[in-house]
Amino acid sequence: MKIKQNSEVKEVEVALEGTKGMRKRVLIGYDDGSKNIIMRYFTLLPGGYSERHSHSHEHLVNIESGKGIVVDKDGNEIEVSEGHNIFVEPDELHQFQNPFEKNFEFVCVIPNIDKR
Amino acid sequence: MKIKQNSEVKEVEVALEGTKGMRKRVLIGYDDGSKNIIMRYFTLLPGGYSERHSHSHEHLVNIESGKGIVVDKDGNEIEVSEGHNIFVEPDELHQFQNPFEKNFEFVCVIPNIDKR
Repeated sequence: MKIKQNSEVKEVEVALEGTKGMRKRVLIGYDDGSKNIIMRYFTLLPGGYSERHSHSHEHLVNIESGKGIVVDKDGNEIEVSEGHNIFVEPDELHQFQNPFEKNFEFVCVIPNIDKR
Repeated sequence: MKIKQNSEVKEVEVALEGTKGMRKRVLIGYDDGSKNIIMRYFTLLPGGYSERHSHSHEHLVNIESGKGIVVDKDGNEIEVSEGHNIFVEPDELHQFQNPFEKNFEFVCVIPNIDKR
């Protein structure tokens, strides 16, 4: 068993092209012994956004704090806030945006795509 | 893409032997198209506890609200609260307890053990 606080986990800037003001913590991952699933914590700063992209792995998202916009594959912009859950299918185009004044924070779970 | 609020998801009492005051919501699961991972939301009422047990699947837990006790395989009782993450390994004996006065709520992610 491994137990740690979010705040104990190193936060890194996500430096992908097309991404702005996005920070990531790997809450539980391979280094913790989790072979099948990775649990990450993202913070989108005001004005921040993730890359608009798709990939072969799905996302399971639970909004923790603040509010933001999810853009779906058709370009629809859906406002989400604390307590919302979002399932992004494999290969589905998506983007997260924070046009608001407070941090937009969410847990995002994916299969362990880096089996090592 | 599927989007829903925690409160929109039906809450059911967990009626396992050895479990008391435990409620579950499947936030994202097979019915949402998630083939690899299930995201659940548990509420342990004051005085409630989960079964002390082990199983072949792991747990990835993020505490959302309140505080509680996690009992590890050696019987150690560790207090956890909002923002704590717990990784329970496959086949590791564990139990969650809420001896406190407020609800103890957490997200618990598992691999999809019911592939259907």
